[in-house]
Amino acid sequence: MEKQNRSGTAGKVIRCKAAVCRNPGEPLVIEEIMVDPPKAWEIRIKILCTSLCHSDVTFWKISIGPFALFPRIFGHEAVGVVESVGEHVEEFQEGDMVVPVFRPNCRECRDCKSQKGNGCSIFGDKLVAEMPRDGTSRFKGMNGETLHHFLSVSSFSEYTVVDVVHVVKISSEFPAEKACLLSCGVSTGIGAAWKVADIEEGSTVAIFGLGAVGLAVAEGARLRGASKIIGVDLNQEKFEIGKKFGVSEFINPTTCGEKKVIKEITDGGVDYSFECIGLASLMEEAFNSSRVNWGKTVILGVEMHHTPLPINTYFLLRGRTVTGCFFGGLKAKSDIPILAQKYLHKEINLDGFITHEVNFQDINKAFDLLLEGKSLRCIIWMD
Amino acid sequence: MEKQNRSGTAGKVIRCKAAVCRNPGEPLVIEEIMVDPPKAWEIRIKILCTSLCHSDVTFWKISIGPFALFPRIFGHEAVGVVESVGEHVEEFQEGDMVVPVFRPNCRECRDCKSQKGNGCSIFGDKLVAEMPRDGTSRFKGMNGETLHHFLSVSSFSEYTVVDVVHVVKISSEFPAEKACLLSCGVSTGIGAAWKVADIEEGSTVAIFGLGAVGLAVAEGARLRGASKIIGVDLNQEKFEIGKKFGVSEFINPTTCGEKKVIKEITDGGVDYSFECIGLASLMEEAFNSSRVNWGKTVILGVEMHHTPLPINTYFLLRGRTVTGCFFGGLKAKSDIPILAQKYLHKEINLDGFITHEVNFQDINKAFDLLLEGKSLRCIIWMD
Repeated sequence: MEKQNRSGTAGKVIRCKAAVCRNPGEPLVIEEIMVDPPKAWEIRIKILCTSLCHSDVTFWKISIGPFALFPRIFGHEAVGVVESVGEHVEEFQEGDMVVPVFRPNCRECRDCKSQKGNGCSIFGDKLVAEMPRDGTSRFKGMNGETLHHFLSVSSFSEYTVVDVVHVVKISSEFPAEKACLLSCGVSTGIGAAWKVADIEEGSTVAIFGLGAVGLAVAEGARLRGASKIIGVDLNQEKFEIGKKFGVSEFINPTTCGEKKVIKEITDGGVDYSFECIGLASLMEEAFNSSRVNWGKTVILGVEMHHTPLPINTYFLLRGRTVTGCFFGGLKAKSDIPILAQKYLHKEINLDGFITHEVNFQDINKAFDLLLEGKSLRCIIWMD
Repeated sequence: MEKQNRSGTAGKVIRCKAAVCRNPGEPLVIEEIMVDPPKAWEIRIKILCTSLCHSDVTFWKISIGPFALFPRIFGHEAVGVVESVGEHVEEFQEGDMVVPVFRPNCRECRDCKSQKGNGCSIFGDKLVAEMPRDGTSRFKGMNGETLHHFLSVSSFSEYTVVDVVHVVKISSEFPAEKACLLSCGVSTGIGAAWKVADIEEGSTVAIFGLGAVGLAVAEGARLRGASKIIGVDLNQEKFEIGKKFGVSEFINPTTCGEKKVIKEITDGGVDYSFECIGLASLMEEAFNSSRVNWGKTVILGVEMHHTPLPINTYFLLRGRTVTGCFFGGLKAKSDIPILAQKYLHKEINLDGFITHEVNFQDINKAFDLLLEGKSLRCIIWMD
């Protein structure tokens, strides 16, 4: 039995606008597309707003190999309203405000049920998938061509279809653009600080890369009462921005000849270091900047060159640890509501991450702003 | 004021026998040597028994570089009785039974006071030191030549001098040969399982290298209720031996062509893997055998070739962790008494580690047995 929705679109193909990437590295093109109705365990979402994350840009640039899939609809940080739901969907109904998340959370597998980690052993962590259950796309161009999904979300479209394991319900009173931030980058940084590193009061922290993720790590560290939060970035302007999120010291590697600065500031190294860029060389620096005996390095950046991280094993024997996470180690369905509550209780600063807002037709401006290092998050409004 | 001891030796040079290593890789020579009295914060110990650890053998073989110091008195796993104490020593007195430990524990620095790790920021972790406070030796040959210390212990001598930060008092009713085991290898393995990995009930564990340290990891894992303890060793005989310490599955890499065996046995990888040999390639295998999402690899082996461990960073992002420790992350002064209590309460199996016993004059047999993979621990009795 098809449940009909208020607008009468349930079960039907929706024609709407999407920002399609036809070729790697080229500006997106606003086109009319067709969005299939959701199949079983899927929901179709009307996107309210979306924002651009570095992972979109990373994959947008890839021109060869299995990750170079075009034409494609990027976008994975968003918030929207459920337009209709597929068969067997009990968790969501039309009108629910929802946050899609690239990291699946089925809540039934051994991994999802465990208190540890945030992987899902049923839905895995394939970074480039069409719909996870049947491997097909819900998007077509007007000429019938298949448009590829991205990270199981594809939010650069007025409507998208997402599997229920990739969606979290959120109170409809929550400000949409703030909910959008919880969908990826900010949650990643705060989660890494709280759940993966588990920073204690008085700790020292170094963050390599002060984009939105790095600054969210700082925000998480600040709220845990870190005594020193050292930001490392090539862009000098990031120091002033970082101060709003608790960055207390700033190192610009281009202006400091010596690499030992962090060890000097912290008398031997930081308790926690975070790599938020995705370069093996920087991960090594982050590891080496952590203190012997208990220093912990958390890798958040995705190394796209597949360069391994060369670890000096003697440093491991001296008690250092290196780990990493996707999505800050958060389990989307249980942890995003907690972060949302903390925002409503004014415990976390989300507002500061929004530096720009554009309309959907100007989505390429969001790319320019991020590539030029001018924006943290640029909210892209659908209306 | 010099406190005189019962035997009248306090404050005087003691002539005694020691097993001196004159050249790398050559049999030790039992010689008469002179042992200076302890200086301030030092104690002189009459060794009751000692045993041979792989680290002795590793350094015994080194023929070039700064670690090649000869003539030298090896040995760092031992138990003895305090013969006399130097100035300012309050913690020990003549007649105390004591266990020397290569890992310092001053109990006053930031690291020793912290709940984390087991480093000491005042006494550091220099692996090859003479006496830690003044950098000089307390040993001389009969011709006046200096004999080098090893790991701040040098227990292959009837008498040795050790700094108070390297000694732990133990009940004199504790069986000497069992106390000796707590001095290094067995404590390292149990500590790594309990304090560094913190293995939970029902966990799966893989141990690469079933020497005394690896088997002590198994013993620690067994006592924590691990559901599977997989031993990996080239020596097939280690399976039968391992069973006594809880090893439930055994993999001999020479007879299994495929490397994926651990993942098959454990449905995706072990919760905890331990490297107890000291080879970067094996560390990488240990890391890769851990499960995604929360697998933790603990490095115990010392990589003497200085080969870095190449980490696939994508595996870190999927939630794996790699760390390491010296002496199992144990703080000697507080944790050795706990292990001793557990032995007395029959909670841990120490007896099974003692496979051979020899008299001091036969110390080179202990080397042969270890090099041939025939012994776990060979107790070398001084009397």
